Amino acid sequence: MSEDQGVTDQGPKQVTGGEFDGWTHWPHDPFESRSGPFYYREEADGSVVSAFRAEPRHMNGGGFMHGGCLMTFADFALFAISTKELDGSHAVTLTLSGDFLDPAYAGQLMEARGEVTRAGGKTIFVRGLITGDGKPVFAFNGIIRKIRKG
Amino acid sequence: MSEDQGVTDQGPKQVTGGEFDGWTHWPHDPFESRSGPFYYREEADGSVVSAFRAEPRHMNGGGFMHGGCLMTFADFALFAISTKELDGSHAVTLTLSGDFLDPAYAGQLMEARGEVTRAGGKTIFVRGLITGDGKPVFAFNGIIRKIRKG
Amino acid sequence: MSEDQGVTDQGPKQVTGGEFDGWTHWPHDPFESRSGPFYYREEADGSVVSAFRAEPRHMNGGGFMHGGCLMTFADFALFAISTKELDGSHAVTLTLSGDFLDPAYAGQLMEARGEVTRAGGKTIFVRGLITGDGKPVFAFNGIIRKIRKG
Amino acid sequence: MSEDQGVTDQGPKQVTGGEFDGWTHWPHDPFESRSGPFYYREEADGSVVSAFRAEPRHMNGGGFMHGGCLMTFADFALFAISTKELDGSHAVTLTLSGDFLDPAYAGQLMEARGEVTRAGGKTIFVRGLITGDGKPVFAFNGIIRKIRKG
Repeated sequence: MSEDQGVTDQGPKQVTGGEFDGWTHWPHDPFESRSGPFYYREEADGSVVSAFRAEPRHMNGGGFMHGGCLMTFADFALFAISTKELDGSHAVTLTLSGDFLDPAYAGQLMEARGEVTRAGGKTIFVRGLITGDGKPVFAFNGIIRKIRKG
Repeated sequence: MSEDQGVTDQGPKQVTGGEFDGWTHWPHDPFESRSGPFYYREEADGSVVSAFRAEPRHMNGGGFMHGGCLMTFADFALFAISTKELDGSHAVTLTLSGDFLDPAYAGQLMEARGEVTRAGGKTIFVRGLITGDGKPVFAFNGIIRKIRKG
Repeated sequence: MSEDQGVTDQGPKQVTGGEFDGWTHWPHDPFESRSGPFYYREEADGSVVSAFRAEPRHMNGGGFMHGGCLMTFADFALFAISTKELDGSHAVTLTLSGDFLDPAYAGQLMEARGEVTRAGGKTIFVRGLITGDGKPVFAFNGIIRKIRKG
Repeated sequence: MSEDQGVTDQGPKQVTGGEFDGWTHWPHDPFESRSGPFYYREEADGSVVSAFRAEPRHMNGGGFMHGGCLMTFADFALFAISTKELDGSHAVTLTLSGDFLDPAYAGQLMEARGEVTRAGGKTIFVRGLITGDGKPVFAFNGIIRKIRKG
């Protein structure tokens, strides 16, 4: 189980100022805040996009983005993409997988978009794509499971 | 592609002092150093074990280890487990997937062990298991690919 | 490695007659012919769709489509979706994964659509979705690798 | 969802005669019977092994075993490996993934072995390895979920 993001009093907050002014993030998640922070917002068409700006601290020894950074962002995006289906419920990640398509570099705008391929009971299936300045970088799939109402 | 850990002059270094005295790590990987750092060493039986000590900064908002932290450590472990097969070559991760079996907590000794299920050409298949104080926490699979001699 | 579908003199053939009149299939693949056969064709928009009609012999003991049938069809679809990128080359599957979203039943029209998320060298990343009478049933991801020109 | 193998009156049966005399199989699963049939038995150490003999009908157009055949056998093995944890319950596959390590050929004894990496509630995590005449051919992971008592 990877996340439990609907903790009472520690839920999502809107950001004020900066590049992601008006976007939402999770301020009470130590690893995520330190890795990102990552942000999400609902688009005009009802879909949810997640984003952050790549910095040198997100890179690996080869000078491109670390796979762990992409997977941390993908784990965040699983929950952002499922915002409507979660409807405030707590949930945990059962499984997460991803394909490394192309390198991403410092300075790029990283975005994650995707879709819930199945929800109904407590099990939510998600797939998504992370892009760097619009170019596909990482394709991911995950299953999250609601554990109780927040 | 996620990693390229055999960069000349920026290769693995042995740690001196502390809990992981004598273990090896990658000091020139910004995201990994910041997430971990993570360490590995060869055991008496020739297998390679990776490890780090879980701290509050590795946790998520629910108080247990963030999935992204586990996946970052797993990505590190893919390369550690493949040390012999890589034989100094550069490599990148093609795909990484994992199942979240049980939560891990701050204070636990995190270890990753695994095996190369296939190597021969440039494509190396790895599977492994991360434990927290010896209990299974995360089962992972990955494929890495050698790109050139370091 | 799972497939090698571009064998000389044993390549794809167009079907004449029946529900899939004008579609293409692989007549020289014993397991696939026996499981399916499965068919594909290029659509007006340039994308490739794969299809077959679900029959009782594709079902499991519970009366809905066997997971192995869906994965066999997905493995077929990986190559159909990559038709342009393969350009006649032989290829093998490195990895294939899939999420079982909802059951499919005998009588349904099964279709697989998808996209190449990355191609360039010899490694081709694909993701797709199988539907039964238009409803999502199975989401899959795979990596195939060209091995030589057919 | 891929399987539901504990159907009343249609459960597992012991085979009499032939290479797999005394082994257990599922006689009421149309796709599986036609693909295999596949067999399993408990070993002296309490682990469960699944097996079948590779025939020309299991091969692809390249003359080695079709990926779909391996994944169908892996889906069977998920349930065989989980025999104790299922304890007669019905279950469905949520996700299944696998790496194609090396080709398998007609005439080989195919075996699948593995372990439950986590069980407790209704969600069972499994990983395993298929071998052909003892050589690793396919590494797989899956998650199954109990749906009700059979």
